Amino acid sequence: MSEILDKDYEGGLSRRQLFRGAGAAALGAALISAGGLSLASAALAKEAASPWPYKKLDVDEVGRIAYENYFTKFCAGTVARGLLFPLRDKVGGPYGSFPIDIVDWAHGGVAGWGTVCGTLPGAGIVVGLVAGDQAENIVNDLMFWYSENNLPIYKPARVIKAAIANRSVSGTPMCHISVGKWMKKEGVGFFTPQRMDRCARLSADIAMHTARLLNALAEGKYVPSHKALANVKQFGITAQLNCTDCHGSAVPGVPGS
Amino acid sequence: MSEILDKDYEGGLSRRQLFRGAGAAALGAALISAGGLSLASAALAKEAASPWPYKKLDVDEVGRIAYENYFTKFCAGTVARGLLFPLRDKVGGPYGSFPIDIVDWAHGGVAGWGTVCGTLPGAGIVVGLVAGDQAENIVNDLMFWYSENNLPIYKPARVIKAAIANRSVSGTPMCHISVGKWMKKEGVGFFTPQRMDRCARLSADIAMHTARLLNALAEGKYVPSHKALANVKQFGITAQLNCTDCHGSAVPGVPGS
Repeated sequence: MSEILDKDYEGGLSRRQLFRGAGAAALGAALISAGGLSLASAALAKEAASPWPYKKLDVDEVGRIAYENYFTKFCAGTVARGLLFPLRDKVGGPYGSFPIDIVDWAHGGVAGWGTVCGTLPGAGIVVGLVAGDQAENIVNDLMFWYSENNLPIYKPARVIKAAIANRSVSGTPMCHISVGKWMKKEGVGFFTPQRMDRCARLSADIAMHTARLLNALAEGKYVPSHKALANVKQFGITAQLNCTDCHGSAVPGVPGS
Repeated sequence: MSEILDKDYEGGLSRRQLFRGAGAAALGAALISAGGLSLASAALAKEAASPWPYKKLDVDEVGRIAYENYFTKFCAGTVARGLLFPLRDKVGGPYGSFPIDIVDWAHGGVAGWGTVCGTLPGAGIVVGLVAGDQAENIVNDLMFWYSENNLPIYKPARVIKAAIANRSVSGTPMCHISVGKWMKKEGVGFFTPQRMDRCARLSADIAMHTARLLNALAEGKYVPSHKALANVKQFGITAQLNCTDCHGSAVPGVPGS
C-alpha cells in the first residue's frame, strides 16, 4: 500500500508505516488494539506471507521464455512463466509446486475485456511472491513503464509469427487502448500475426523489466521510480492522468482535462 | 482460454480444445509436433499446474472475512483472504504456506490506477488455484456479475465505518467508473467512510459470488453464465459493450456506439 493512498484510505493512520518491520504476532496484537477486529486479527496473526526466496534472473532468458510461450499461453500466463520457470530452476523449493497457470485468465485485459493489460497482473503475481513490502511500488513502476515507453522493444532471435514495423506509446496500461493505438499505427487488425507478434514481444518487454526491477531489489539497489498516483487527490477518484484517451476532449468538472 | 478468442488468436487452431484432458507429457509432445517450440515445450512438460484441492466454502463466512479485512488490506487482498483463510482451515496442505498477500498490489484498480476493480484479480487468483480449465469461464462470469448487478448487496452484521444508502450498477468492471457512479449516487467523495464501507461490502459480494461459483464447480453443477465477450469480433479489439461510459457520445468508426 503506497503511503499517499494508505494514509487517506485509513483516515490519517498509515497502518503500513505503523507495522513496517513488525512480525506477524506483533501485527496481530497491534490490530486488536487498533481496530478490535478479532476475527480478522486472529487470521492475520497466522497468515503465510511473502516474500519467497529469489535469485537474480538472466533478463535475456526471461524475455525469450515470455516471447515463445505467448503463442500458447498469451500475455498474462507467458509473463508469469518467463519469470517463474527460471525461479523454479534456480531457486526450486516452493516454486516447484506453484501452479504456474494461476493467472492465465488475465489475458486480453482480463478474460478478453480489454481492461489492464494481462502482462501486468502476470508480472504482478511474481512481484507479489518475491518483493515483500516493495511489491506495490514495483507494480506501480511497471504500470508507468508500460504506459510511457515506445513498445515493443524486444527483438526475437527467431520471429515466430510475423515481422512488425512499428512501436507505440500507449499512455495507459489499458489493453484496449494500448493494442488499439499500435494496430492503428501498424495498419493491421486484431486477428493478425503482426498483432500477435507485437503482444508477444511486449510480453517479453514487461517480463524483462520486471526481472530488472526484481534483480535491483535483490541487490539492495531498488528505488521506486514513481510515487503512487496522486490522481486520487487531484480528481477525487482513482484515475490516470490521460483523461482524453477515454473521455474524448474534456471531462465535466475536471479542469484541464 | 475461451473458445471464441482461443480459436481466433491461434488462427483457427483451438489448442485448448486440442489439449483438454491431456496430461503434461502428452501436452509437451503435442506442442513439439504442433509448433516446434522446443524450449517452451520442455518447460511446459514439467510445469506444476492447478487445480489445488477444494472443499465447499461457507458463503456467509467468506463475506464476513472479506468485509472485515477490507479496512486493512483493501479490495484485492481482502477478497483473496475471504476465500483463502477458509481454504487454509478446511483443506490445509498447500494453502498453509501460500503467500496470502500475493495480490494486495491490485487494490484501487491495480496500484490505484483505476483499471479493473481489485476484487476481480483478488478473486481470480483463487479461481486460478482451484478451478482448472474452468478458471477463465468463472472469471468471465465474475466480470459480468460485477458489471450487471446493483451493488453492494452485502449487509454487515456490524457496520465498521459507515451506514450507506445506495447501490449502483457499474456497467463495467473498471474501478474508476464503478466507484465514480456509486459516489455520485451516494453524494460522497472518495476519502469518506461511506466510500470505504461501500468498497468493503462490494468486496464481500465478489468474494461470496466467487465462493458460490466454486462451490457449484465442486458439486459438478457449474455452467458458465456467459460466453466469452464477442466484442473482439464486433469491434475488432478487446472491448466491453458500453462504449459511451468511456468514450462519451460516440466512437468514431463504431456504428451504434
